[in-house]
Amino acid sequence: MKQFLFAERLAGLRKCMLEKEVDAVWIVQSENRRYLSGFRASDLQITESSGSLLITRDLCFLLTDSRYSEEAAGEASGFAVKTYSEGIVEGLSGLLAEGRVPSRLGFEKDYVTWGLHQELEKRLQELPAPVQLVPLSGIVEDMREIKEESEAAALRASGKMLCAVMEATIGFMRPGLTEREVAWKVEALTREVGAQETAFPPIVASGPNSALPHAVPTDRVLKENEPVILDLGVKLDGYCSDMTRTVFLGEPPDDFNEIYGTVRRAQAAALEAIRPGVESTFVDKTARDIIQDAGFGPFFGHGLGHGVGLAVHEGPRLTPRKSVALKKGMVTTVEPGIYIPGKGGVRLEEMVLITGEGIESMTPDPKVYEF
Amino acid sequence: MKQFLFAERLAGLRKCMLEKEVDAVWIVQSENRRYLSGFRASDLQITESSGSLLITRDLCFLLTDSRYSEEAAGEASGFAVKTYSEGIVEGLSGLLAEGRVPSRLGFEKDYVTWGLHQELEKRLQELPAPVQLVPLSGIVEDMREIKEESEAAALRASGKMLCAVMEATIGFMRPGLTEREVAWKVEALTREVGAQETAFPPIVASGPNSALPHAVPTDRVLKENEPVILDLGVKLDGYCSDMTRTVFLGEPPDDFNEIYGTVRRAQAAALEAIRPGVESTFVDKTARDIIQDAGFGPFFGHGLGHGVGLAVHEGPRLTPRKSVALKKGMVTTVEPGIYIPGKGGVRLEEMVLITGEGIESMTPDPKVYEF
Repeated sequence: MKQFLFAERLAGLRKCMLEKEVDAVWIVQSENRRYLSGFRASDLQITESSGSLLITRDLCFLLTDSRYSEEAAGEASGFAVKTYSEGIVEGLSGLLAEGRVPSRLGFEKDYVTWGLHQELEKRLQELPAPVQLVPLSGIVEDMREIKEESEAAALRASGKMLCAVMEATIGFMRPGLTEREVAWKVEALTREVGAQETAFPPIVASGPNSALPHAVPTDRVLKENEPVILDLGVKLDGYCSDMTRTVFLGEPPDDFNEIYGTVRRAQAAALEAIRPGVESTFVDKTARDIIQDAGFGPFFGHGLGHGVGLAVHEGPRLTPRKSVALKKGMVTTVEPGIYIPGKGGVRLEEMVLITGEGIESMTPDPKVYEF
Repeated sequence: MKQFLFAERLAGLRKCMLEKEVDAVWIVQSENRRYLSGFRASDLQITESSGSLLITRDLCFLLTDSRYSEEAAGEASGFAVKTYSEGIVEGLSGLLAEGRVPSRLGFEKDYVTWGLHQELEKRLQELPAPVQLVPLSGIVEDMREIKEESEAAALRASGKMLCAVMEATIGFMRPGLTEREVAWKVEALTREVGAQETAFPPIVASGPNSALPHAVPTDRVLKENEPVILDLGVKLDGYCSDMTRTVFLGEPPDDFNEIYGTVRRAQAAALEAIRPGVESTFVDKTARDIIQDAGFGPFFGHGLGHGVGLAVHEGPRLTPRKSVALKKGMVTTVEPGIYIPGKGGVRLEEMVLITGEGIESMTPDPKVYEF
């Protein structure tokens, strides 16, 4: 069953290769690598790859170094593991020099650095039969946007765990705790419910800090009657989930009633608008117009949502720019927000799967909008 | 005092700029960015930058989007924060079009992707006064290799916390716990001692898993008399620490006495060899020869060590290839290992500061070699 999944994905990729007129592709991006091969390793940093894939019209190789070859062989069972000792440029050019050489090799232009490309290009020109590097963008990412049944199930399970973490976190919060203490509780709860890890560092932003959309938890002490934005995510079997709640320990200040209500209305309208065939910009505009009409337009600076899968941020993007037609099988967040500098903010975020008719919530949590 | 530090670093960078004949540099790498500006944000992934620096002969800019501009202004006080809304290519080319335009702009070739470079180059050619992009490698990284006094103090504090985490972890371990449970305890202890976070996902590798140098913790249950490799690190005020211990819950099997003893002797000899002026390859060879002479040569596949600072892996690298002369103020790990596939392994790792005469241990832990 699982091997069948990878075979289907590779068949899809090879169809793309024909369209792009390349004989092989070299895949370095870690989620793309996992999606195509099953190899689960992550990369510590951009200069420290744990491996890459070379996929030709009929062969699949995973190139890595000795630290990872045992895991790679166990996890990427459809791939021949090749271990290099002198780095990827040596490893890849050596492998390409063996057997049938592809004349056009696609590479991921958004992930390969300028320096690595330059080094590899030089080496490939020295081969007896030179290989031409062809820049490609998003070919695996586009496939990943449409979730298969098994992926939808994995995301559903991840979202369910996240709801449990969110509920327990809200139950734990009280005035006197610091943002950092709450963030740490999130980390602990994530493991307690059985997830591998958080999908990203938890955002716990209280009072004026809640006006920072990507706040890092501080030693600030939670107080009564202030907004606290909780933007949390977990990872389960590699699949991410992502949701945001804004809570008040006590009563929200008067103007926050209006802010919260506006964000909630914007979100509800956007969720209502989502279905296959609808343009992403239309969904974004649906929420943005409501915020604008309420007079908070300048205080909603980010996009409305993003896809979620093996990566916590992936396609489709729901923004005012660059429209894509939404499709069945896509997963997206819907997360409008209003941020008043120096004062505080409200963000609400759901993660939904686009079905044949509309949406299925991946973060179902009946209690959350009691406020 | 702090501003003085950044001014010194910028002066060093500008000296480099003169040597490389560039009028400005564009810094995208997150630790380089923090080192030069004080801006602490990290990047979620390569395609999601939280900002970059443009440093000319006399001006300093930090370019970011609205999510980060408030933090950036607070943390990078020596930099003028410029907020872009249409992405970095627009933001940077717009800024370059204002005022005096540098004609040669250095960029980090090991961090800028091929695609981003291509897009930026196209845009810069369209400016009224075209800007030439000049590839640079390691100019900030080279500066970061030599630790200032305040950095040495930060690393010392980080290493001290790590020793406390290591000791408590070893005290916590007993047969019946899983690798994952121990790894989670490490995460908890990291916060309890007061560090921000682990410097990398803890490695807890037991029994045969200890033969995988970069093992990911599994649900495998720890058993008596088996090796368990603990490779841990914490981050404090942005500065990393890194150390490894191999412990046995009970008595090590006979052959592991020999393996452990060999690794320990290799490490001690390498530590003895380190001082300013010595070549990195000589230190690596000192340890490697001992392992080779004991008949375990094929089972030590990785380099002997690496620098530690704002990044957990940085220069200098101690490997059999590419020699560098060690200098006062460098920090490096010394971590020989022997890994027998299917059976298990031993790795021991210290982190040391190179002083005027020799070394100062940054991971001082008297009890650890009682075994």
